[in-house]
Amino acid sequence: MRVAIGVDLGGTHLRVGLVDEKGKILRKIKREVSPSREAGSFFEEMALLIKEVAGNHLQNLAGIGLGLPGICDQQAGIVYQLPHFPSWKNISAVHLLKKLFSCTIVLDNDANMSAIGEHWMGAAQQLRSFIMLTLGTGIGGGLFLDGKIWHGDEGFAGEVGHMVIEKNGRPCACGGRGCWETYAASQAVPKGQTALDLSRAADHGEKEALKFWEEFGTYLGMGIANLAKITGVENYILNGGISDAASHFLESCRAEIGKIGYERLTLKIKVTPSILREGGNLLGCASLVFSSPSNSVKNSH
Amino acid sequence: MRVAIGVDLGGTHLRVGLVDEKGKILRKIKREVSPSREAGSFFEEMALLIKEVAGNHLQNLAGIGLGLPGICDQQAGIVYQLPHFPSWKNISAVHLLKKLFSCTIVLDNDANMSAIGEHWMGAAQQLRSFIMLTLGTGIGGGLFLDGKIWHGDEGFAGEVGHMVIEKNGRPCACGGRGCWETYAASQAVPKGQTALDLSRAADHGEKEALKFWEEFGTYLGMGIANLAKITGVENYILNGGISDAASHFLESCRAEIGKIGYERLTLKIKVTPSILREGGNLLGCASLVFSSPSNSVKNSH
Repeated sequence: MRVAIGVDLGGTHLRVGLVDEKGKILRKIKREVSPSREAGSFFEEMALLIKEVAGNHLQNLAGIGLGLPGICDQQAGIVYQLPHFPSWKNISAVHLLKKLFSCTIVLDNDANMSAIGEHWMGAAQQLRSFIMLTLGTGIGGGLFLDGKIWHGDEGFAGEVGHMVIEKNGRPCACGGRGCWETYAASQAVPKGQTALDLSRAADHGEKEALKFWEEFGTYLGMGIANLAKITGVENYILNGGISDAASHFLESCRAEIGKIGYERLTLKIKVTPSILREGGNLLGCASLVFSSPSNSVKNSH
Repeated sequence: MRVAIGVDLGGTHLRVGLVDEKGKILRKIKREVSPSREAGSFFEEMALLIKEVAGNHLQNLAGIGLGLPGICDQQAGIVYQLPHFPSWKNISAVHLLKKLFSCTIVLDNDANMSAIGEHWMGAAQQLRSFIMLTLGTGIGGGLFLDGKIWHGDEGFAGEVGHMVIEKNGRPCACGGRGCWETYAASQAVPKGQTALDLSRAADHGEKEALKFWEEFGTYLGMGIANLAKITGVENYILNGGISDAASHFLESCRAEIGKIGYERLTLKIKVTPSILREGGNLLGCASLVFSSPSNSVKNSH
């Protein structure tokens, strides 16, 4: 059976996993990473981890997939900008890895990879179209339209977290104000608390925490309603750390979506938590490797 | 040369035009329509107008295209909802016309038809992807992605005018608040004035009018920036009555887009007025008829 390596880079971690064609994660390593890391030394360490995880599969790897938290040109194999790694600009990631490994190398941003993974083995297996929303520090978006990821003209599609939903609203790290992710991601958590604290407090029925999640869900629903009106897409899959608290915010999220003036659309919109959770990105990387045209030629024997 | 009939229905008018394969409008009739018209009697009158405009081409028409201001299922040929014609609900428009004419009948909403027209003969001829924005009483949207209209799961894509850009903002006819079209369409014009008044006043350098259009452009740019971040689409074509005032609002619109935190994207976004203007919808209808698969079989001799 063919195997592929998935590389899931987050704001604080790096996960490297070996995945087989049935979507089973055979082996996995997780490392903490620091935002000050420069791309060069980071890629060297990543290459060592890939070799370690691949083990004796290294010579017959179908390929390596990178799921990165930022703006990528997946066709050119370039990472333009990663908000969590400010020194990384216009990195030819695929080219860097090609020097070290002879197999197929693919990349895309993490929300797109999670969408591909969820379509392969998760909550979106039956769907022709859906939007993946990764709720973490920000909100990442993966637009899966009619069977494949929609990247836009040059890879910028899915930057949904910076959709402005309140003119002159909360300040955002992007320099703008009122971006969706300042209301419906972990940025919305009051200083001195964490999303996990608030989730546990809500589990215990604490009023303030319940109120926080209700408001969180309302804002989440407002943005999803916007996306539905723009794209006509009916299915939304939630992933990312914050989606673990979904039981506390899904009700108010759905209630807000219910307020759209288009009844036919409202009734069809479904918001569903991911099945694959933190494995989604890794599985998406592997799926993209297995379905890569270059790969299907090389490995079709 | 093949000819087709285009039917352009607006909130206050009905235009029926005969269009040839080169995109020339050979003949055109315009009628005022009232929102209280019921669909049945309206379709009877429309059929008479089609026959009148078609003249001796009636027997060899390639087909009839309908561009309607509301939510349509173009595959099923059904009009679900037209905001300006409240009594029209779930009208099988294609079926109604099939009873009267034996040629190909196609329909889509007006913004989509305008997009198809602009791609065929107007400002979007070189573009693989763009978004058409029709600025009138509301804001209609046509998403042209990778060479064709994107309809979403069931035809709801492009309802961009109801994207909320200000929570608890201005009340909208849809029942919501803060919808984009309450800020960047003719609804934004203060009571007792018209967009045309304000455009003329701005032509004469009147301060209040100039200020109105500056704010109008800022809101327009804010919404376009949202669409660009979500869809990754870089080209926006403006049509509809209000786009005639573009010289007064394009500068502030572009300045607002310039504030997006993604420099690479900002530099690529282009906002361009339509070339076809009020002829866009009719030409889109005709183009859709000529390219219809059923038609190319029937009329390929």
